[in-house]
Amino acid sequence: MKTVELQDLPLRPELRGQSPYGAPQLQVANQLNTNENPYSPSPALVADLVAAVEDLGASLNRYPERDAVELRTALARYFSGQTGVSVGVDNVWAANGSNEVLQQLLQAFGGPGRTALGFGPSYSMHPILAAGTQTKFIDCPRGEDFRIDEVRALEAVHTHQPDVVFITTPNNPTGDVTDLALIDKITALAPGIVIVDEAYMEFSPSPSAATLLQKYPGKLVISRTMSKAFDFAGGRLGYFVASPAFVEAVMLVRLPYHLSTLSQAAAIVALNHSADTLATVAKLAKERDRVSAQLQQWGFDVVPSESNFVFFGRFANQHLVWEKFLERGVLIRDVGQPGFLRTTIGVPAENDAFLAAAEEIHNLKDES
Amino acid sequence: MKTVELQDLPLRPELRGQSPYGAPQLQVANQLNTNENPYSPSPALVADLVAAVEDLGASLNRYPERDAVELRTALARYFSGQTGVSVGVDNVWAANGSNEVLQQLLQAFGGPGRTALGFGPSYSMHPILAAGTQTKFIDCPRGEDFRIDEVRALEAVHTHQPDVVFITTPNNPTGDVTDLALIDKITALAPGIVIVDEAYMEFSPSPSAATLLQKYPGKLVISRTMSKAFDFAGGRLGYFVASPAFVEAVMLVRLPYHLSTLSQAAAIVALNHSADTLATVAKLAKERDRVSAQLQQWGFDVVPSESNFVFFGRFANQHLVWEKFLERGVLIRDVGQPGFLRTTIGVPAENDAFLAAAEEIHNLKDES
Repeated sequence: MKTVELQDLPLRPELRGQSPYGAPQLQVANQLNTNENPYSPSPALVADLVAAVEDLGASLNRYPERDAVELRTALARYFSGQTGVSVGVDNVWAANGSNEVLQQLLQAFGGPGRTALGFGPSYSMHPILAAGTQTKFIDCPRGEDFRIDEVRALEAVHTHQPDVVFITTPNNPTGDVTDLALIDKITALAPGIVIVDEAYMEFSPSPSAATLLQKYPGKLVISRTMSKAFDFAGGRLGYFVASPAFVEAVMLVRLPYHLSTLSQAAAIVALNHSADTLATVAKLAKERDRVSAQLQQWGFDVVPSESNFVFFGRFANQHLVWEKFLERGVLIRDVGQPGFLRTTIGVPAENDAFLAAAEEIHNLKDES
Repeated sequence: MKTVELQDLPLRPELRGQSPYGAPQLQVANQLNTNENPYSPSPALVADLVAAVEDLGASLNRYPERDAVELRTALARYFSGQTGVSVGVDNVWAANGSNEVLQQLLQAFGGPGRTALGFGPSYSMHPILAAGTQTKFIDCPRGEDFRIDEVRALEAVHTHQPDVVFITTPNNPTGDVTDLALIDKITALAPGIVIVDEAYMEFSPSPSAATLLQKYPGKLVISRTMSKAFDFAGGRLGYFVASPAFVEAVMLVRLPYHLSTLSQAAAIVALNHSADTLATVAKLAKERDRVSAQLQQWGFDVVPSESNFVFFGRFANQHLVWEKFLERGVLIRDVGQPGFLRTTIGVPAENDAFLAAAEEIHNLKDES
């Protein structure tokens, strides 16, 4: 075929010169860069999944159940148990990863002429999803300690009157939790909707913002994912919990049959095994505390984490340090935050490999 | 939870009062409303799928291969064989159904301030996807015979200078094919990109517009789906074939890890069994011709179809006739085109049930 370059195509002007989002998918001995749960699904879970596929295989010529009612019911049951806040199928919406959930919310409540506000550094997809839906994104920087600065946050909400506010808690990439009291104040002041992104909440002992849903039924949305605690990144399943009206809203913008028959069935199987899966969360939290303590002992600057990763520094050039970890067979993440890197908590052997590399790099530290 | 209604939420104004898109998912003896292939995947295909899930189950805690290279390679091989136009992995992009593929193309090449043009009646998701991406949609009506009117089409492209043109061939809901000569003329004149939606092309003996890719490498995109001929609606897999630069373009707007590990694996298995699956296409084409001929014999107005459905009329009130079919256990589709209804070709027994209902309704015809 004749050669045509990207710059020859009539691409939207704001996309010109951009690069695709995504961490490098390298094959390295210790993969600690995308906050996956390192524990494989249990053999019992896989056996149930195989049985489910045996059952549904012959029906794959038919479209999936469009509203994913059985899956949303299972998610509601799980979420109610995990948070202590009782919700039902009408409160829950599911899609292919929380990215698709957030994109649908931005299509319905953001879009051209509207603004979203977040507290950076935070999940880097929030501004990208805003750009993809033509929503103007405003970043209100966190304080020096990477926590949301209350005064600055409330002032930003008051000044910019954002249609959508993102609060990530525990925050990615920093790991810290935002107090419910501050979420409450921001939500009270926000003129539009507030999305509390709780992708990592299972790793935290802090209460879910779900406890505020009753108070802000027309504003608050809790987004979650099965990619992290849930051991199910390959299954791509995200969801939100909110008033039923929010579910009605995203149904106006969702692509029909967006969730395949296999995705729905696999997520239901995974939810049936949630007790097993979540047992790994306790192990990971312990390992996180071990890794954090060791890094601190060596004098690294470590943000207190309630997630399955640790954000640490400070480095004169964090990308050079990232490369030093890679040379030692440890793939961690440079999120582009000057002076800091993020490592995912793996199985103990992976964390040992990470710590061994960190110690070596620490001993060279004058170079970086 | 306190009750909040949809109208209380700060929804985008253009979404207010809208209803979610989608055919009714009713349980009826004969489901002939969504153009699915009525034949179940073969036992051999299901066995391979089960084996694949057994293999990959333990890796579901990891994110999927983000660029779906193995799947895109398999799609390229299949497409090259089916069309006779040799393409490779770099020419192919895949997503969760052709809806997501088209949405990504509109995000990259449509969007605010840009326009898409289609020839209606056609696939009803095209204007909906345009709305969802804030792309202005212009409809250039087909002629009385539901074919694209050449003079009117070229005039519309010349006048509106659309950024994106949609040509659906075979067209849904009417079943007719647009000649390559006309696609060539429209593409030559179009200032932006031209998406030829070939969702049903396997059912047609006509050549694919892929034969024009060489001539228009910077303009032409062929979109396809595994939902129809391919027997795989539940797997949700759509793709496009175009110059590699188009793949680079959608990678700037795609959600990272949009295709789950299961979706990729299941589609690869289905492609491995394409010879079996496509054998059903020949049977369906025969049945389509039988159903069309019988309807014509009873005096119905039948659009010549090269797809797996038949568009027929004319009715004073097509929705009343749709209900009469439903009362007789036959669910067909009212796409909102005055005077006409669409029936999917099912297995012979389903087509017999459809024809029996049609004959009864024909005998009552004075009422409708």
